[in-house]
Amino acid sequence: MDESERTILDATYRALCEHGYAELTMQRIADESDLSKATIHYHYDSKERLFDRFLDYLYERYTGRLDDLSGETARDRLDALLTMQLADEAADPGIDFQTAMLEVRAQAPYDEAIQETLSTFDEALVSRLRETIADGVEAGEFDEHVDPDLAADLLTTAIKGAHTRRVAVRHPLDRSYEAARTYVETYLVREDASEVTA
Amino acid sequence: MDESERTILDATYRALCEHGYAELTMQRIADESDLSKATIHYHYDSKERLFDRFLDYLYERYTGRLDDLSGETARDRLDALLTMQLADEAADPGIDFQTAMLEVRAQAPYDEAIQETLSTFDEALVSRLRETIADGVEAGEFDEHVDPDLAADLLTTAIKGAHTRRVAVRHPLDRSYEAARTYVETYLVREDASEVTA
Repeated sequence: MDESERTILDATYRALCEHGYAELTMQRIADESDLSKATIHYHYDSKERLFDRFLDYLYERYTGRLDDLSGETARDRLDALLTMQLADEAADPGIDFQTAMLEVRAQAPYDEAIQETLSTFDEALVSRLRETIADGVEAGEFDEHVDPDLAADLLTTAIKGAHTRRVAVRHPLDRSYEAARTYVETYLVREDASEVTA
Repeated sequence: MDESERTILDATYRALCEHGYAELTMQRIADESDLSKATIHYHYDSKERLFDRFLDYLYERYTGRLDDLSGETARDRLDALLTMQLADEAADPGIDFQTAMLEVRAQAPYDEAIQETLSTFDEALVSRLRETIADGVEAGEFDEHVDPDLAADLLTTAIKGAHTRRVAVRHPLDRSYEAARTYVETYLVREDASEVTA
């Protein structure tokens, strides 16, 4: 990615947080950068094309963050993932970004390219959860009866629902975090897990 | 509610499913009824006012459906609620309506009246879940360690997330239903529940 592309994509991020998806324009993106609208048009001939590229860029950042999650045990890695998605206010995008992303999700049924990219985000989260939970079951940290597929699906759905409720009805994110974390600690983690991993 | 009000609200429902929230107009609502646009304007002086009334109407229908859920045991009533929200294709609104409602949710941060009404929907679902789970714990059907507040929050979040994923990434609703139902059957229901309730 060259420097002006990065400048444009970072400006898109700021313009999206500031104005929302419905009000996002090339001019507003230009206003958030030191580039002219003409320069942005030189790189992307339409807002749609720029936005598709922007979603790819978000996807790269998102999977990068998923890959960076560390932890010695599966339980630690799962907790880091829930923290990243539901609790880490510093690292996590703020509510303005999530507000814009809910608009983008609502737009998905009308825009195949958006829907396709959002599906890759969804699948990246599901597979990371599934993998982590399966690792934990295999290592004896999580209960052997846990079905990694179903547990990953429930947690993905809970994470997406937490973001929707946060934006639509101002439901506190830390409350959703507590509910998801309690599910993991109470039902996935084996009662004698600390002995197993010690 | 008089007859023309009902006609208008039912036409709003159809127009919303057909065109989505962004493209909803008084003309399109009129087109779905046998009333003129002028008659609709006589009842509601703006689309915003009509839509606020429409959301109240949906709320009455929604709480009516929640109140109608029956079942001898708490476990039955909880299952009926999950079925209504996640599985009952016949009774449940179809994907067109849920697509429109995701647009409405995305609009909520920009419209206080919408956000307020959506919050009452959210609260109605949470309290019904909380009540049903607390009944089940009290009756010995559900495990005594279940926290009705946290379990109700997790299920509400999972239901909202299921609707978001269904619309945004075409995640199958029956998969979310299976994940939520497995959570209830595996973790909330006491292992010896059938003996208790028999």
